[in-house]
Amino acid sequence: MTVNGPAGPVLDLNADLGEGFGRWQLTDDDSLLSVVTSANVACGFHAGDPSTMRRVCESAAEHGVRIGAQVSYRDLAGFGRRAMDVPPGELADEITYQIGALRVFARAAGTDVTYVKPHGALYNRTVTDAEQAAAVVAGVLGAGGALPVLGLPGSRLHEAARAAGLVAVAEAFADRAYTAAGTLVPRRSPGAVVHDAQAVVARSVRMARESAVTAVTGEDVPVRARSLCLHGDTPGAADLARRVRGALEEAGVRLGAFA
Amino acid sequence: MTVNGPAGPVLDLNADLGEGFGRWQLTDDDSLLSVVTSANVACGFHAGDPSTMRRVCESAAEHGVRIGAQVSYRDLAGFGRRAMDVPPGELADEITYQIGALRVFARAAGTDVTYVKPHGALYNRTVTDAEQAAAVVAGVLGAGGALPVLGLPGSRLHEAARAAGLVAVAEAFADRAYTAAGTLVPRRSPGAVVHDAQAVVARSVRMARESAVTAVTGEDVPVRARSLCLHGDTPGAADLARRVRGALEEAGVRLGAFA
Amino acid sequence: MTVNGPAGPVLDLNADLGEGFGRWQLTDDDSLLSVVTSANVACGFHAGDPSTMRRVCESAAEHGVRIGAQVSYRDLAGFGRRAMDVPPGELADEITYQIGALRVFARAAGTDVTYVKPHGALYNRTVTDAEQAAAVVAGVLGAGGALPVLGLPGSRLHEAARAAGLVAVAEAFADRAYTAAGTLVPRRSPGAVVHDAQAVVARSVRMARESAVTAVTGEDVPVRARSLCLHGDTPGAADLARRVRGALEEAGVRLGAFA
Amino acid sequence: MTVNGPAGPVLDLNADLGEGFGRWQLTDDDSLLSVVTSANVACGFHAGDPSTMRRVCESAAEHGVRIGAQVSYRDLAGFGRRAMDVPPGELADEITYQIGALRVFARAAGTDVTYVKPHGALYNRTVTDAEQAAAVVAGVLGAGGALPVLGLPGSRLHEAARAAGLVAVAEAFADRAYTAAGTLVPRRSPGAVVHDAQAVVARSVRMARESAVTAVTGEDVPVRARSLCLHGDTPGAADLARRVRGALEEAGVRLGAFA
Repeated sequence: MTVNGPAGPVLDLNADLGEGFGRWQLTDDDSLLSVVTSANVACGFHAGDPSTMRRVCESAAEHGVRIGAQVSYRDLAGFGRRAMDVPPGELADEITYQIGALRVFARAAGTDVTYVKPHGALYNRTVTDAEQAAAVVAGVLGAGGALPVLGLPGSRLHEAARAAGLVAVAEAFADRAYTAAGTLVPRRSPGAVVHDAQAVVARSVRMARESAVTAVTGEDVPVRARSLCLHGDTPGAADLARRVRGALEEAGVRLGAFA
Repeated sequence: MTVNGPAGPVLDLNADLGEGFGRWQLTDDDSLLSVVTSANVACGFHAGDPSTMRRVCESAAEHGVRIGAQVSYRDLAGFGRRAMDVPPGELADEITYQIGALRVFARAAGTDVTYVKPHGALYNRTVTDAEQAAAVVAGVLGAGGALPVLGLPGSRLHEAARAAGLVAVAEAFADRAYTAAGTLVPRRSPGAVVHDAQAVVARSVRMARESAVTAVTGEDVPVRARSLCLHGDTPGAADLARRVRGALEEAGVRLGAFA
Repeated sequence: MTVNGPAGPVLDLNADLGEGFGRWQLTDDDSLLSVVTSANVACGFHAGDPSTMRRVCESAAEHGVRIGAQVSYRDLAGFGRRAMDVPPGELADEITYQIGALRVFARAAGTDVTYVKPHGALYNRTVTDAEQAAAVVAGVLGAGGALPVLGLPGSRLHEAARAAGLVAVAEAFADRAYTAAGTLVPRRSPGAVVHDAQAVVARSVRMARESAVTAVTGEDVPVRARSLCLHGDTPGAADLARRVRGALEEAGVRLGAFA
Repeated sequence: MTVNGPAGPVLDLNADLGEGFGRWQLTDDDSLLSVVTSANVACGFHAGDPSTMRRVCESAAEHGVRIGAQVSYRDLAGFGRRAMDVPPGELADEITYQIGALRVFARAAGTDVTYVKPHGALYNRTVTDAEQAAAVVAGVLGAGGALPVLGLPGSRLHEAARAAGLVAVAEAFADRAYTAAGTLVPRRSPGAVVHDAQAVVARSVRMARESAVTAVTGEDVPVRARSLCLHGDTPGAADLARRVRGALEEAGVRLGAFA
C-alpha cells in the first residue's frame, strides 16, 4: 500500500533532527519541532548521541510531533553521506539496531517510533539499489511493529516496503529541483537545490494544492506526496520552515502526521 | 530487595557473550550458551556489532538462556576496560541506548532483555563510585521494565539499584581470588585470577553449597551469590564452564536463571 | 628547562583550532589564524578529520602561525572532555600516533609540528596525575624531534617534560579565574570563566605586562606565562581574540611564537 | 615505471600484519615477520591500534622486514571490506593521515614506511575506479617521500601511480584463483580461494619460476609479479607462509624486498 496523498486531505511536514554528536550541534531542534509534524531523529550512526536522542524525543512528545528513525550507514566521519557496500544481512541488522536504540527513548518520552526514513547516502542508494532497499526493509521488519517507510515515490525502497506489507509513504522536497521525469536533480548538478526562500514557499504550496511542480526544464510534472521534507541543517532553516508552514496553512492545506 | 541466594535453592551461571566486533571474534558463544543460564550480551559500546547481537539473542532463545544487557563505557579501542569520567546524565543515556539496542534483537528472537550487568571498567567503577552507580541505575530506569541489576554484593551499584526499587542480584566469581573482607583481589595483584581448572571447579561447588570461599590469606569468608560468573574470553573457557556446571550438578546444586 | 617568559620579551598567543569533525564545524579557524601565533591543531581523537587537519596546516603555514599537536584521549563522543584511565603504554602510543598524523600534514604544508599540548580532560588530568603525565611525555619522545610541551606551570606534565629533557612552556588563560594559590578555579565552580570581554582584555594585558592577575578572592597572584591561551570555540571567539591582540600590541607587548 | 619482476631476479613476500584492534587480535605477527620480506601494516582505519602499530614496526625492524602502510577506508565495523563512495579529496587526506601515523612508529623503530598498499575494499575498488585510484595516489603524494604503490598489474591504481611518477609494484596472490584473462576470480565466486596448502605452494613456485599460473579454466596465463601476497589472517597462515618460503628457496628463487 502507498500513501500518496494529499491533495485534498492532509500533508505531513518532516525534517531531520538531532543531527549533532556530543560537542557538535547542527540542527535547531526545538525551533523545528514547533513547525514540523514528523521528526526524523538521527540514531547514532551518522549523528545523534544518546542524550540528544533523549532530548529530541522528549521535545517531540511535548510538541505532539511524530518520531521516525532516521537510519544510516555507520559513518560518523562522513555524516552518512558516503554510499557503502554493506552486505545485506549486516545492513539489515544495523537498521534494526538503530530503530531499537531510538525506540527506547521514544517510549521513555511516552510516545513511540512510528516510521523509518533512511538518511543521506542510504536514502539515495535505496532509490535504485534493490538489494540494499530490501535490506533496509528487512531491518525494519526485524525491529517489529511493521513501521511505515518514508521515501521517494517510485524508489526501490518503496517497492520493497510494499512487497513486505509495509506502508510506503511518499515524500517530496520543498527545496530540491525536479527533472521532467519527476525525479530529483542530482545534488551535484547545478540548480539542484532551490535557495530562494520565496520560491521554496511557492513550490511547497503548489505541491500541496496542485500536486505539481515546475521541472528544471520548464514543464510541469506531477508530484504526489503525503509528506513534505524541510531541511533543518542550513542557516535560517527554522525560519524558512516556519514560512512554508504559514503559507501552507494560509492556502488551506491541512497539516498532520501520517503515522 | 536483594537476591542473595542460593544456597539451598537455585544458582544462575552467567558469562559475557557476543564480545566480538565485525571481523574480530572473541567468545565461543554457542558453546557457552549450552552451559550458562544467563548471557551478558555486549551491546556495541565495548564490543558487539548488530549482527553478532542478533545471532547471540537467537541462539540464547533457542537454548532457553536469559539475556542481559552487558552495558559499557563507549570504548571499542579499550574494550571498555578504561574507566571514564562520563557525566552522570550522559552515562545514563548511554546505558539506556544500549539496553534499547539489545532489546530489539532479544524481542525479535521471541524473548527479552531481562537484566543488566555493567562491563569491565564500568563494573569496577560502580562498586565504589556512587555517582556513576546512580547513573547506571538511572539508565536502567530510563529503559523501562524495571530490570534487575547483576553485580557485586555490597557495591554502590547494588545500593543504588535497591534505592530505586530495582532487584539487585548478587554474583560471585568462580575464578577470582577473594580477600579476607570478602571483596575481590584487584586484577593487577598477584594471584588475582585462579588459573587452575580443578581449583575453579572446587571453589564453584563450595560457593554454591557452603556459600563460602577460602580467601588469599587462608581464612574462610562467606560468599552469597545468586549467580556465578564464568569467563568466556579465555582459551578453554567453554570447557572449563562445562566442567564447573557438571560438578555443580553432580553436587546437587540446582541451576536456573534469576530473571 | 622551563620557558616562563615574558614579561619584557615576547608573548605567544595560542588557540585550539580544527576542532570540527566531518560535517560538524566548531572553530572559526581562518579568523583565529590571523590573530594567534600558535595553533593547537586537533589530531582526530577528540576532533579533527584529516581534511580539516590539512586545511588548518596549510592556512597556518600561510599565516606564519606555528603548529602544535593538540593530543587527546580517544573520545569523539565526549570531545576529549572525559578523563580516562588509559594504561600508560597505550596512552603514550596514542599520543605518538596523533603527532605522526598531524606531522604529515604540517610537513606537506611546508612547515612542521613544533610543540605538543594535551586537550581537555587529558590536560587537566596531567596537571596532577604523574603517571599519565609521564605517558604523554613518553608519547612525545616516541614521536621524535624533542618537541616542547605547552602546559600549566607547576603541572606534573611540566615536571615530566623537564625530567625528560624537553622544554616545558608555561601558559596562562585569558578568560579563566585564578585562585589565590595561582591555580585555575575549577571549571564547574561559579565564576570559573571570565565572560566579560573587557575584563578578559584587561587581564591579558596585565598578565603580559605585570605577570600578575587578580584572584577570585581579591589578592594579586603572580602568573608567569610564555603563552596566553585564547578560546576559539565560543561565539565571538575570533572577535575577542582580535581585541586581546590589539590591546597587547597597544600596550607594547611583543608577540611571537615560542617554538 | 612498473616493477614487474621477477623471474630471474628477486621476489618479495608480503602479508597483512597488525590487523588486531585493542582486545582483538587477528594476525600472528611475529611468526609471519620471520617469513615475509614486506609487512603491510594496518594504520588504524580498518584495524591497527597505536600500540600494535608500534610493536609490529619494532618487530619488523628487528627482522629486517620492510614496512608498508596498509591504508583503508575508515571502517572498523566492516574491517575495510565495504566499498565506500568517499569524495576524492577526503579519501586522499585519509590516506595521507594513515601513512603519517604509521611513519612515526616506523621511524621510532629506526626504519621507515617504504611503500603503500590499499586494503580490502579499497584495493578492489581501485582496480577499476580511476577516481579513487587517483585519490589514493594523491594521498600517497601528500605524505611525501614518493612511496611505491603495491597492487595488481593492470589496475587503475597502478596507472595512476605511474602517471604521478611513482613506482607501481606488481603483486600476485599465492592462494587466489586466476581467470584466463589473468585477473583474479572474484572472492564470491566458487573456487576463488585455493585452500589446498600443497597447491598454494606449487603455484607460488611456478609463479616465481615461470611467471605463469593455471587459470580456473585450465589454460596457462602469465603472471608477472615482483611481490607475492601471503595471507596472514587464516588459521595456519604462518605455517603455510613458511612452507611457501621454504619451497621458493629450495627452487632457487631469491627472496628480497622491493622497496
